[in-house]
Amino acid sequence: MNSDSLKQLLDQVAAGSMDPEQAMQRLKKLPYEDLGFARVDHHRVLRRGFPEVIFGQGKTAEQITAISRSLHDQGAAVLVTRVDRAKADAVLAEYPELTYHADCACLSQLATEAPQPGKGSVVVIAAGTSDLPVAQEAVLTAELMGSKVEKVYDVGVSGLHRLASAADVLMNASAYVVVAGMEGALPSVVAGLVDKPVVAVPTSVGYGTSFGGLAALLGMLNSCAPGLSVVNIDNGFGGGYLAGLIDHLG
Amino acid sequence: MNSDSLKQLLDQVAAGSMDPEQAMQRLKKLPYEDLGFARVDHHRVLRRGFPEVIFGQGKTAEQITAISRSLHDQGAAVLVTRVDRAKADAVLAEYPELTYHADCACLSQLATEAPQPGKGSVVVIAAGTSDLPVAQEAVLTAELMGSKVEKVYDVGVSGLHRLASAADVLMNASAYVVVAGMEGALPSVVAGLVDKPVVAVPTSVGYGTSFGGLAALLGMLNSCAPGLSVVNIDNGFGGGYLAGLIDHLG
Amino acid sequence: MNSDSLKQLLDQVAAGSMDPEQAMQRLKKLPYEDLGFARVDHHRVLRRGFPEVIFGQGKTAEQITAISRSLHDQGAAVLVTRVDRAKADAVLAEYPELTYHADCACLSQLATEAPQPGKGSVVVIAAGTSDLPVAQEAVLTAELMGSKVEKVYDVGVSGLHRLASAADVLMNASAYVVVAGMEGALPSVVAGLVDKPVVAVPTSVGYGTSFGGLAALLGMLNSCAPGLSVVNIDNGFGGGYLAGLIDHLG
Amino acid sequence: MNSDSLKQLLDQVAAGSMDPEQAMQRLKKLPYEDLGFARVDHHRVLRRGFPEVIFGQGKTAEQITAISRSLHDQGAAVLVTRVDRAKADAVLAEYPELTYHADCACLSQLATEAPQPGKGSVVVIAAGTSDLPVAQEAVLTAELMGSKVEKVYDVGVSGLHRLASAADVLMNASAYVVVAGMEGALPSVVAGLVDKPVVAVPTSVGYGTSFGGLAALLGMLNSCAPGLSVVNIDNGFGGGYLAGLIDHLG
Amino acid sequence: MNSDSLKQLLDQVAAGSMDPEQAMQRLKKLPYEDLGFARVDHHRVLRRGFPEVIFGQGKTAEQITAISRSLHDQGAAVLVTRVDRAKADAVLAEYPELTYHADCACLSQLATEAPQPGKGSVVVIAAGTSDLPVAQEAVLTAELMGSKVEKVYDVGVSGLHRLASAADVLMNASAYVVVAGMEGALPSVVAGLVDKPVVAVPTSVGYGTSFGGLAALLGMLNSCAPGLSVVNIDNGFGGGYLAGLIDHLG
Amino acid sequence: MNSDSLKQLLDQVAAGSMDPEQAMQRLKKLPYEDLGFARVDHHRVLRRGFPEVIFGQGKTAEQITAISRSLHDQGAAVLVTRVDRAKADAVLAEYPELTYHADCACLSQLATEAPQPGKGSVVVIAAGTSDLPVAQEAVLTAELMGSKVEKVYDVGVSGLHRLASAADVLMNASAYVVVAGMEGALPSVVAGLVDKPVVAVPTSVGYGTSFGGLAALLGMLNSCAPGLSVVNIDNGFGGGYLAGLIDHLG
Amino acid sequence: MNSDSLKQLLDQVAAGSMDPEQAMQRLKKLPYEDLGFARVDHHRVLRRGFPEVIFGQGKTAEQITAISRSLHDQGAAVLVTRVDRAKADAVLAEYPELTYHADCACLSQLATEAPQPGKGSVVVIAAGTSDLPVAQEAVLTAELMGSKVEKVYDVGVSGLHRLASAADVLMNASAYVVVAGMEGALPSVVAGLVDKPVVAVPTSVGYGTSFGGLAALLGMLNSCAPGLSVVNIDNGFGGGYLAGLIDHLG
Amino acid sequence: MNSDSLKQLLDQVAAGSMDPEQAMQRLKKLPYEDLGFARVDHHRVLRRGFPEVIFGQGKTAEQITAISRSLHDQGAAVLVTRVDRAKADAVLAEYPELTYHADCACLSQLATEAPQPGKGSVVVIAAGTSDLPVAQEAVLTAELMGSKVEKVYDVGVSGLHRLASAADVLMNASAYVVVAGMEGALPSVVAGLVDKPVVAVPTSVGYGTSFGGLAALLGMLNSCAPGLSVVNIDNGFGGGYLAGLIDHLG
Repeated sequence: MNSDSLKQLLDQVAAGSMDPEQAMQRLKKLPYEDLGFARVDHHRVLRRGFPEVIFGQGKTAEQITAISRSLHDQGAAVLVTRVDRAKADAVLAEYPELTYHADCACLSQLATEAPQPGKGSVVVIAAGTSDLPVAQEAVLTAELMGSKVEKVYDVGVSGLHRLASAADVLMNASAYVVVAGMEGALPSVVAGLVDKPVVAVPTSVGYGTSFGGLAALLGMLNSCAPGLSVVNIDNGFGGGYLAGLIDHLG
Repeated sequence: MNSDSLKQLLDQVAAGSMDPEQAMQRLKKLPYEDLGFARVDHHRVLRRGFPEVIFGQGKTAEQITAISRSLHDQGAAVLVTRVDRAKADAVLAEYPELTYHADCACLSQLATEAPQPGKGSVVVIAAGTSDLPVAQEAVLTAELMGSKVEKVYDVGVSGLHRLASAADVLMNASAYVVVAGMEGALPSVVAGLVDKPVVAVPTSVGYGTSFGGLAALLGMLNSCAPGLSVVNIDNGFGGGYLAGLIDHLG
Repeated sequence: MNSDSLKQLLDQVAAGSMDPEQAMQRLKKLPYEDLGFARVDHHRVLRRGFPEVIFGQGKTAEQITAISRSLHDQGAAVLVTRVDRAKADAVLAEYPELTYHADCACLSQLATEAPQPGKGSVVVIAAGTSDLPVAQEAVLTAELMGSKVEKVYDVGVSGLHRLASAADVLMNASAYVVVAGMEGALPSVVAGLVDKPVVAVPTSVGYGTSFGGLAALLGMLNSCAPGLSVVNIDNGFGGGYLAGLIDHLG
Repeated sequence: MNSDSLKQLLDQVAAGSMDPEQAMQRLKKLPYEDLGFARVDHHRVLRRGFPEVIFGQGKTAEQITAISRSLHDQGAAVLVTRVDRAKADAVLAEYPELTYHADCACLSQLATEAPQPGKGSVVVIAAGTSDLPVAQEAVLTAELMGSKVEKVYDVGVSGLHRLASAADVLMNASAYVVVAGMEGALPSVVAGLVDKPVVAVPTSVGYGTSFGGLAALLGMLNSCAPGLSVVNIDNGFGGGYLAGLIDHLG
Repeated sequence: MNSDSLKQLLDQVAAGSMDPEQAMQRLKKLPYEDLGFARVDHHRVLRRGFPEVIFGQGKTAEQITAISRSLHDQGAAVLVTRVDRAKADAVLAEYPELTYHADCACLSQLATEAPQPGKGSVVVIAAGTSDLPVAQEAVLTAELMGSKVEKVYDVGVSGLHRLASAADVLMNASAYVVVAGMEGALPSVVAGLVDKPVVAVPTSVGYGTSFGGLAALLGMLNSCAPGLSVVNIDNGFGGGYLAGLIDHLG
Repeated sequence: MNSDSLKQLLDQVAAGSMDPEQAMQRLKKLPYEDLGFARVDHHRVLRRGFPEVIFGQGKTAEQITAISRSLHDQGAAVLVTRVDRAKADAVLAEYPELTYHADCACLSQLATEAPQPGKGSVVVIAAGTSDLPVAQEAVLTAELMGSKVEKVYDVGVSGLHRLASAADVLMNASAYVVVAGMEGALPSVVAGLVDKPVVAVPTSVGYGTSFGGLAALLGMLNSCAPGLSVVNIDNGFGGGYLAGLIDHLG
Repeated sequence: MNSDSLKQLLDQVAAGSMDPEQAMQRLKKLPYEDLGFARVDHHRVLRRGFPEVIFGQGKTAEQITAISRSLHDQGAAVLVTRVDRAKADAVLAEYPELTYHADCACLSQLATEAPQPGKGSVVVIAAGTSDLPVAQEAVLTAELMGSKVEKVYDVGVSGLHRLASAADVLMNASAYVVVAGMEGALPSVVAGLVDKPVVAVPTSVGYGTSFGGLAALLGMLNSCAPGLSVVNIDNGFGGGYLAGLIDHLG
Repeated sequence: MNSDSLKQLLDQVAAGSMDPEQAMQRLKKLPYEDLGFARVDHHRVLRRGFPEVIFGQGKTAEQITAISRSLHDQGAAVLVTRVDRAKADAVLAEYPELTYHADCACLSQLATEAPQPGKGSVVVIAAGTSDLPVAQEAVLTAELMGSKVEKVYDVGVSGLHRLASAADVLMNASAYVVVAGMEGALPSVVAGLVDKPVVAVPTSVGYGTSFGGLAALLGMLNSCAPGLSVVNIDNGFGGGYLAGLIDHLG
């Protein structure tokens, strides 16, 4: 219910075409999202294509199919994360319009209308080969939002020169998603080199004291490089979404 | 050293106006930041006013004075965090051009040139009265960068309606800094309401199982609201800097 | 042994119909539960239907069958938690009077006598689809106790308006069980809206820094909403039992 | 704004005594708490005396004085926790109507109207002498709410018989608050003996592996006694509030 | 109340010299410790001198004085741990019969009757000079119980030969208390050399990753040397008590 | 090399039947265990039957067979822990003299000579059915050492009266092994009732905040009951060994 | 690019045999490793045989094959860690020149040229049979580097005399790799006996409070033996590499 | 007792000038360090100047004075760490030959004989100004051992070029000590650039999620740069000692 429809309702009451009791019943259910500044899901639709994400882990193929269809019917882009091959096959049998991305275990479908393009590009940087599934989830997310995405992969301790050789690519970025496991130092290094927001995504890649990504997370949170912020371990979607959002600002 | 000056140097060698040995000495010192895409400190100066932050804790008044002066001499804005009153007095005795902000224990000085204004505004939201020092550090940082900052304070579980009444202020924001201790739920709630990046700053406010801000941090990292990212516990500077940076994009 | 039977015994001694030695033998075994205020298991039977719970994990089908039968023979309601399908089938082959609830992996059997109805209702609120098994365990528990249970499911960050639309249901509640994983903020929000006890049940739903439910647990423990308390991670039984107990007070 | 005043407003519109634009302005600011099921603070006032708690730690004497006065002006009971003697003296100099409770470092003031009495009593049980400040905070809270409070203190491993000798006191309880540090086993033992809700409050009393109350907290969360729930470490207020709330149900 | 007095009471009822009602009143208060196997505090008195320990931290001088006097009046040995010099002076001013042990911050008083001597001796081994306060607490405890105590101090990595040179002393031990901070390896080494129970006491001595004694504790719990068990960090009393108890067996 | 053989060697040197160089070679290799106070393995053999334990997890059937045989050849009792059924079958095919105990996943063989009987008995108390494998490992260990073992199982919060009814059994114990998971409160309760050493064995039984036995461990370490010490989580062998050792003292 | 080749390039420019534009293109790609002090990978090749390690876990057989071949083509030794048998078979089918080491789950291939021999030897000491896979990874690494490796295995608490009997072997070591799980005390003991660097490798061997190697790691970090440093849990490669590196110094 | 004196003793027995009983008494006390391969303290003296470190924290001025004097009397270099100014003054009043180093809170005294010089140099690199006390402790340690030490300080994210400009200094290093707090990424970066052992020393510098140096420690342990190992948080001595030891090899 927006200002217009609220005004309309009150006008009807004033005009006697709706009685106060009826109006009260409708207002009593006044939903939270009508408080005056629109909720993000509405904005998302306005922006054409910002995806509604579905956390696929622990959901059945039936649940995923139903929710995906319902989102698509509203015109939204659909993104389902953490779907293994077997569950994906079951979903696709029912709903073949979805596309399965085996490299990041996601299902997706474009929004009904093409998404608004971003202002620049999103650069996704990954430290190692094992970090690719998380990085690809970020890439897919930002692309669904309409951002142009550049990938700079396999940039570990012994590969910093790849950043240098990718200088042209890096110059036009709106935001960076830097994905790293183990000691998680790469986002700090990147944030020391660039002047746009860096979204650090720790991964659970590692063993022993990596403690499932905790070491990488702490490294990123303690970075002294300004302009860097962090999302949950293995949260490629979160990194890609924030970078895509920044790429659509202005 | 950029492409132009490198070309110039090589031209001089080709022309015989610089001998190879001299050129090699200069190239040998070739600093890291000249790899082709500029380092952020240079950009900061270009943007007039992005502060160089000094972590004041564990530094002497002499060290703080010296580093501040040196930064100011390069035209940079100066921001020193975590300076208690006594140390601030000692610094100010030597360097009275700095301003002490008792509400966030910071010293600051504007850049030589006025900073570039931001595109919109930065909104800093704080959950409780005890979170104010961290929130004020964010405010000061973003203001030094040239951003217009709006403050919405004391928005806890029983104060969500203050967000509603601040709707007009919230509409023009480029980015939000949301500061909260204890359970740290406020950034999730805000990120569910708005469509711009939310930088969550956990604070060490709380007791018992707040574990010095760990509970708030985990709550923020596990938020299912997209567009939200997190910085270190009590890192008001980090939150304000990232929001200010986003406010200057585009 | 209650006051009456103790008095009776002493009267018999006084009357000479029981000799002191015999009395001493009986009193020497005086069990703990006869100290004057009855133990809860007795009360449970008095209240007809409060279940004796059996932690099914790590017990064999034979053990579960035997304990269930023994409880039922005393007239008690039976509830076995954490029983997978295969083990349930083995139990049911021997003891077909039990009912298997696949949605929460529980076996149950009603008490011999119908349970006392509660005073109002228990409302079980779940944040997401993945939290349903824990929520259903709470529902089953409270229903076995005789409480009327209302379910409000899938109330995450983007679903708070469902609470509003369920207002009528919420009005008559005696207590709320709020089940949530990830950042675990939902119980705080609910406790800020209602004026009855809220039992928060953190779940292990999440990934990365959810640390198996620790993030949700800490969020709930640090809530500043009064009237909220917490049980163990994934302890749907504990949440349902406490809410059912409150629903039977007064 | 409750149902009555909403109806009144709509009646005024229908009657033409308020024009729709005016009504819309008022409704636009419609605060969150008017969604249909009243927020707890209103209920608290209805119940005469349920306290609004102020977390005193990290607030100045001026802030405490101002907030206390404002709450009292609305008729509410006032409770300020975690106020040391020096700060309390500064507050009392300005606002002598408050009472300082040195045994739990709290300031309080009764509500304007006497609180509604509870249905039974709240029993506060403390394991050791060092747990008394937390226990007393619970006592004070429940008493401000109008509950009759019984205290059973110093009930450690070697004092369980005190529970037995306090049997009469225990029989009429609505709810129990059990406060314990170190291994935190007391709430489990109590919950095994009684048939009313037990609110367990872990304390930071202990050393070494008590880890500031973590050991006690974990012990309580892992209790297999049904009817037991837990609040934050040292949160006497939370324990007393929940028990007082249960004591006012029905 | 032991078997004899219970028999006596029943005899009185049988003889008519006590009426059943009176008997019931007395039996109703029947304390827990009369269940048939005596509680340890009674045994302690029987054994003449086993101390009742008072955890001094967080207790006032008045409380300590009162509890100490009460214990002494029952003939028990008194041991108060964690009492700093100032509090000790306040206690001693009121109760000069106590002795202050500055090396372990304890107050003590012998039992009225001399304690039963142990069967052999208790050997207390400390890794470093900084572990001495904890070691001395163990020594004092075991001595109060009547055990002969041998001390082997400063046996770190570079001092294992001291164990060898103390061979004669070690031969007659009933039990060993081994006190160590930092990596806590000493108890494992000792348990590999001897054939009597080793009680390991981790201390909080160390820095960085000692995490307040956690490293030492984990080292001791993971020892593969059989015959070794562990008490809480810095719990010299617990170590000394268990060793003294073993020394009095048989 | 014991005192006798050392004396013999020196006599030979004095007598000229061994030259100093030869003696020096032998003494240079002087092994650690000859320092003057015998190592425990030697004592174990002297005591006939104290088992040498083999940690079976991560060892092949071949390794287990070989080590078992070698120990048996020296006359020692053999105990192999953590052997699953399949591995046990493979070992038994090669070495059928071992006995497999499916209830605790152990293999064992008696020492060549019957073990020395203990002085009293070892009582093993287990909180729940799921704790039985750990308890049985303790029972098997103590029995191999020659101790008489009494079992009191399924003594949780609702079963404390079983302790009372087992009073006669409990009276003659030398030591208690108390095995418990979840909140781990049982050892504290037992230690408050008895006057002999209590060895607490935390188990990994539980879920959520039991954190694999951590909650139980912390509960036991923080117990205020004297005479209680703790071994590693699930270390039934360690508990049984220590209790058996104490049972053989004096 | 070293100083010589840089000088050569500039000479060519000066001589006109390379034009400035060409030179700039080459210098623009100037990799990080040419800053003046060579990067370790170059040194490794110079030293003939220092392996480039590939973390095999989470890589496909195809990826492993491709990277291995590429490294071998540059003449480097190849070492792939954490490859299970099935994946190894898939790799070997494509690239049979690799050797699979089942005892440490590694694939390896010698460098094209024989590695430089070390100065002395590397001694790898393992506490228990279960630590062998990690120890063997260290052995393989150091051998690939050209070091002579001595193995002293199964040196636990009851096997310290094996160190003594291995005295001759120990005398010529350049460095020690000490591998231990559980309490991790062995490296401290070894470092107290020897005068060369000791690299401690904690392993995840253990159960309960070993917490996946954390206990061993903390024990090693808190060692008071100088000359000892630590690598990640189960990082046999890291231990072997550092010891091999030290063995090639001087 | 070394080989010579052992031979001498046996010769005396052979010659009859010492009787076997006497010899046995002396040999029975045969200390551990005479097992055949010398203990490090002896080697240290041989190497002239390797310091015996005294952990000053928790020791009295008297204890420090006594131990220092005793070490010096044996000719050893003396190093006392963690001595605050007041305690240092008390020590110096008694023992003025010691030197106090305020920048790292250490007392030291050279060995009687000048230490053997190292083979190359030790380079100590520190990330920030706040890390200097730890770095200086490393410098002092290595210098006492006779190593030439080069310092490269204040090399954080924005100072990597200082490494480049210090290239000449870096070329002759035997080993590197890299000291860093916060995210602790510097040692990884350095180890990627150099080909000598890198000893990483995490510091407790930081706030929030630095958790007293834990973040830095985990970052260092998870580094994928080979040749890097780690010592305890703030353990400058440990880092300096290991680097000095490596510098004296070969």
